[in-house]
Amino acid sequence: MKTLHINLQEHSYDIHIDGGLLDHAGALIRQIHSGSQAIVLADETPWKLYGSRLETSLTQAGIKHSVFTIPSGESSKSMAVLEELLDFMAVSKLTRSGLLIVFGGGVAGDLGGFAAATYMRGIDFVQIPTTLLSQVDSSVGGKTAVNLPSGKNLVGAFHQPRLVITDTELLATLSDREFSGGMAEVIKYAAIFDRDFFDSLTEYQNRRELMEEMPYIVYKCCDLKRIVVEEDERDTGRRMLLNFGHTFGHALETIGQYQRYIHGEGVALGMLLAVAFGQELGLTPSDEIGHPLFTALKDLLEANGLPTSTDIPLMDLVEHMTIDKKADGSKIRLVLLEDLGEAFVDTLTKDHLAAVMETLAQRRICGGDL
Amino acid sequence: MKTLHINLQEHSYDIHIDGGLLDHAGALIRQIHSGSQAIVLADETPWKLYGSRLETSLTQAGIKHSVFTIPSGESSKSMAVLEELLDFMAVSKLTRSGLLIVFGGGVAGDLGGFAAATYMRGIDFVQIPTTLLSQVDSSVGGKTAVNLPSGKNLVGAFHQPRLVITDTELLATLSDREFSGGMAEVIKYAAIFDRDFFDSLTEYQNRRELMEEMPYIVYKCCDLKRIVVEEDERDTGRRMLLNFGHTFGHALETIGQYQRYIHGEGVALGMLLAVAFGQELGLTPSDEIGHPLFTALKDLLEANGLPTSTDIPLMDLVEHMTIDKKADGSKIRLVLLEDLGEAFVDTLTKDHLAAVMETLAQRRICGGDL
Repeated sequence: MKTLHINLQEHSYDIHIDGGLLDHAGALIRQIHSGSQAIVLADETPWKLYGSRLETSLTQAGIKHSVFTIPSGESSKSMAVLEELLDFMAVSKLTRSGLLIVFGGGVAGDLGGFAAATYMRGIDFVQIPTTLLSQVDSSVGGKTAVNLPSGKNLVGAFHQPRLVITDTELLATLSDREFSGGMAEVIKYAAIFDRDFFDSLTEYQNRRELMEEMPYIVYKCCDLKRIVVEEDERDTGRRMLLNFGHTFGHALETIGQYQRYIHGEGVALGMLLAVAFGQELGLTPSDEIGHPLFTALKDLLEANGLPTSTDIPLMDLVEHMTIDKKADGSKIRLVLLEDLGEAFVDTLTKDHLAAVMETLAQRRICGGDL
Repeated sequence: MKTLHINLQEHSYDIHIDGGLLDHAGALIRQIHSGSQAIVLADETPWKLYGSRLETSLTQAGIKHSVFTIPSGESSKSMAVLEELLDFMAVSKLTRSGLLIVFGGGVAGDLGGFAAATYMRGIDFVQIPTTLLSQVDSSVGGKTAVNLPSGKNLVGAFHQPRLVITDTELLATLSDREFSGGMAEVIKYAAIFDRDFFDSLTEYQNRRELMEEMPYIVYKCCDLKRIVVEEDERDTGRRMLLNFGHTFGHALETIGQYQRYIHGEGVALGMLLAVAFGQELGLTPSDEIGHPLFTALKDLLEANGLPTSTDIPLMDLVEHMTIDKKADGSKIRLVLLEDLGEAFVDTLTKDHLAAVMETLAQRRICGGDL
C-alpha cells in the first residue's frame, strides 16, 4: 500500500492507494475516526458491484451505517438531490461527530463532500473513489460542489476529506469510455507539470498495460496535484494551473447539457483547444517549428480513446466561458502551455477571446481536419 | 456612529451602528469593497419601506445592483429559495469578486450568508440588519444556515460578513411582536454575561425608552457576543454559552412549525425552562433561598411582551432536542445559569433529560401557574 500525506495543517489527511483496499476500508477508517455512526453515500452503479464488500468491512470494524444511493451521472449533482441527502442524514440522526463515507466517482465526491461541508456547518467525510477520474483528481484538493440550472459547480465549498481510500482494482469494471475520461485528467497532469511522465504515458499500448501500473499512475497524479494544493489550498494562485483544458471543457459540457460529453472528454477537447489557442497567440510553440506539441497531445488523447474534434461551433463556447469561476467580469483567465510540462495563466478580454476563437473556428481546429 | 471591530484575523470586519446609516450604506460599502457589481437580497417587508433609500445610496456610490426579494418569514430559509437565489446570482453573471448585500432580518441574513458562503465556493457579503434580533445577534458570529424538512439550521457554513451596517432607526417600523422577539436575545446576553446590564434592562418602562438607548443596547450586545466569538469562531467551546435558551427554544419552534413562535419567543420560553431545569438539578440557585432568579427573568420577559408559558407538553420537547447540533449521540449539552450573568454548559444523558423534564411538567413549569 502506498500512502500519500496531504499536508494542509489542521486539514491534513492521507491517501492510501493499492489494489484490494476495499476490504480493509472499515479498519482504515477506524484508525482516523472514533465515532461509530456513519452514512454511506453511494453511486448505485459501483454499489451494485462492490456494496456488500464495503458493508462487510464496515460492520467488521463496528461502524453502524445507513446507505443513501444516487443514480450515476451528473444529474445527481443537483440542489434537489443534495437536500434529499442532507435530510436523510438528519432523519438518520447523524450528529456533528458523525461521518459521511462517499463511495463513487466525481459526482458522488462533489455532492457528498459538499453535504459534509454544510451538514451542521461541517462534519468529517471519507472518500472511496471508484472511477479513474476521481482517483487521480477529485480525491486531492477539497473542492466540493453541485450544479445550478445556469452552470456547473457554481455552488460549493472547500472541505478536505479526513481520509481517502483508493482501491485501483475497482477500475477493472469501468466502461472503456469512463476509463478514457479518467485518462484525460492523467494526461492533463503530465501536460502541465511533468514532461517525462507525459512521455512515459505514450508507451502504454492498451488499458491492460495501464492497469498493471495503475497504483503508480494514480499516486503520481495525486502527488503532482498535492504540490499545488498544499501551496494554494483556496485556489487563488498556482492551483489555477489545474484548470488546463477546463474552461473550454466546462463550456462544452454545458452546451452538451452534461449528456453529450463526460467530463474527461470535455477536458480532452479543452486541452487541445488551449494548445491551439496558445499557438494562435504566439505563446505556445507552434507545431510547425519542429516541436509538434498539438500533434503529440492529439495523438496521446486519440490513443486513449478520447475525442479530438467536435461539431459544436467554437463561437458558441465564448458566451459560456464568462460565468466560469476563473473569470473576473470582462476578463478571462486561461491556462496555456509554454511547453509540455510547463503551464502558465494568461489573462485576456472577452473580445480578444472571441477574436482568437473566430480564427480557430475558421481554421476548423478541433472541428474536422486542420 | 459607533464602530465595533470584530477581530477574526483574515475574517475581521467592522460593525457600524447608528440611527440613519442607511443613507450612507453605499459610501460605507465603497470603503471596503472595490468591485462595482452587487446583488441585493432583500426581505420584502423592510424593502417596501426602505428599499428606495438603499438603492439611491448604492447608485450614488456607483454600485450597480440587481435585487432579489424574498417573502418575510422562516419559510424563505429553505433549500428551494436558496437555489433560486443562487441561480439569480449566476444568471446576473455575478463573479467571484462580486458582492452580496443582505437587507433584512435573521432569515435574510442566514440565507444570504449561506448563499455568499457557497456561491462559487465563497464571495463577500455585507449585512444591513433590519430587525432587533438580527442587529444584536445575527450580525456577529458568521453562522449562516437554511432549514431542512427535519429541522432548523441543519445546513450551513461559517462565513463572516465583510461589513455590517446597523441603522437602529429601521427598528421604528417593527411590529411590537418582532421588537419583543429581539428583546429576548438582548435579555439573553444580559442573563449569561452581564448582571449589571440585566439590571439596567429592568429600568426601561416601554419601547420608546428602549428606542432612545438603542444604539447603546445594540452595541453592548454585539460587544458581549464579540468576546466569545473571537475566542471561539468555530463554536467548539465557550461560544456554546450563546445557546442559552436555544436548545429548548428550537424544539418549541420546530413543534410549532415555525408558525406558532417566532425565534425570540422560543428563546424566551427556552431560557425560563433552562433556569427551572438548572434549579431542579440543584445547579442554579433556587428562587426559594432569597435569590429569585426564575422570577426576575420571568418578570423581565413579561415586561417586554414575551411569553412565559406554553401549552405544548414539555415531554414533546425531548425528542426534538436530540438532533440539535449541540447534541452528541445520546448526550445532550444544555446551557444553564450559575447565577445571573454567569452561564455554564452541563452535559447529561437523554434519559436524565427526560426524567427532569417530567418533573418540570408535573410542576407545570411554563405550562401555567407554578
